[in-house]
Amino acid sequence: MTIKLYELAGRDPARPFSPHCWKVRMALAHKGLDFEAIPVGFTAIPRIEGGATTIVPLLRDGEKLVADSFDIAQYLEQVYPDRPSLFKGEGGLAMARLIERWSQQTIHPQIGASMLVDILNLLGGDDARYFRENRETRYGRKLEEVVAGRESRLGEFRKSLEPLRDMLNYQPFIGGASPLFSDYIVFGAFQFARIVTPFGFLEDDDVIAAWFDRCLQLHGGAGLTVGAAS
Amino acid sequence: MTIKLYELAGRDPARPFSPHCWKVRMALAHKGLDFEAIPVGFTAIPRIEGGATTIVPLLRDGEKLVADSFDIAQYLEQVYPDRPSLFKGEGGLAMARLIERWSQQTIHPQIGASMLVDILNLLGGDDARYFRENRETRYGRKLEEVVAGRESRLGEFRKSLEPLRDMLNYQPFIGGASPLFSDYIVFGAFQFARIVTPFGFLEDDDVIAAWFDRCLQLHGGAGLTVGAAS
Repeated sequence: MTIKLYELAGRDPARPFSPHCWKVRMALAHKGLDFEAIPVGFTAIPRIEGGATTIVPLLRDGEKLVADSFDIAQYLEQVYPDRPSLFKGEGGLAMARLIERWSQQTIHPQIGASMLVDILNLLGGDDARYFRENRETRYGRKLEEVVAGRESRLGEFRKSLEPLRDMLNYQPFIGGASPLFSDYIVFGAFQFARIVTPFGFLEDDDVIAAWFDRCLQLHGGAGLTVGAAS
Repeated sequence: MTIKLYELAGRDPARPFSPHCWKVRMALAHKGLDFEAIPVGFTAIPRIEGGATTIVPLLRDGEKLVADSFDIAQYLEQVYPDRPSLFKGEGGLAMARLIERWSQQTIHPQIGASMLVDILNLLGGDDARYFRENRETRYGRKLEEVVAGRESRLGEFRKSLEPLRDMLNYQPFIGGASPLFSDYIVFGAFQFARIVTPFGFLEDDDVIAAWFDRCLQLHGGAGLTVGAAS
């Protein structure tokens, strides 16, 4: 039975952009598992699978439903142990959680705030209204005001990536010689940016940009199936 | 043959304080390996083991000499595979590098700059002169000027620890249910602070302080063999 992946989509169902869904896409590709992608708008999430979830990605594998990208990766690792490992051991599984929290607390707030209007522009009707209202409540300001001055915040953002940049002096992937789920966690954030906006978060000659390019090439170019925003 | 650990010391050889040496002390305790600690002042490092190193920790295990805390941990893992693992797999070894770089780029610059005068006060004669000159060249200012206003930087410092704090909502150690070398990497930084200065970097009710206390209790209280600065 084919695995189904419910993932966030805007008006164009062929351009999934959610960072967390991309983590799962890469994890599935890493495991060599085929899947059927089912695009879902923000406001349709509560209706999928009979109200099974309030968040996507949601994975259906036979009788099993799993939500949350990290939980999905753990599920795939347990259920498909003979396929390439996503964590390479118990230590890798545990440490991936700190790397996830680092990505979430360091990269996401800055990328997310700078792309609010770009994201809005990808959404239609109800989803666009929901997104503006939800995010303006969260930030306490108009989306346009949150985004304003994003160029001036780039220096600080790039500096905040120094641990990742420095690590790349030692090894080509967070997972070492080859990528693991921890790479896909951080990849998801930059893939989100690549698909949503032409705004350049990284300098071209940044070693992080080279790492991101290596990730895009993985698994037959799984990350390249959706083009960059223009 | 007993393992020898050359480690940085100030005037009081019974109060080793170097964060990197503490990482190794904890790694040795984790592996259940006895060792002889050999305190070395800053200016004596180039003379130990016939000029074998410019940095400590330096470990001698029989004929083998290994410098650098991460290299020592990898060495111990390879040579003592039947003792408790420091990385729990290839993934844990790889991801520990990003966690090391995070600790080094996020925690160390802030802790280090705030304790320059406290460190100076632990050093005698030549070491104190070396330390002041070396660090004032590095920072381009008097040590006292670098330290000044450390209270005002506490808020930003504590905020920068959010990934670690957030991770502790999921598991008690960076290594998961029990500690790994990645915990000792971060522990080393806070143990450095605990031994060098009474200045409080963490609020008492911070979950990171609770994690640090758990680390202090490990391996028969190995981290408590040196008392807190008063």
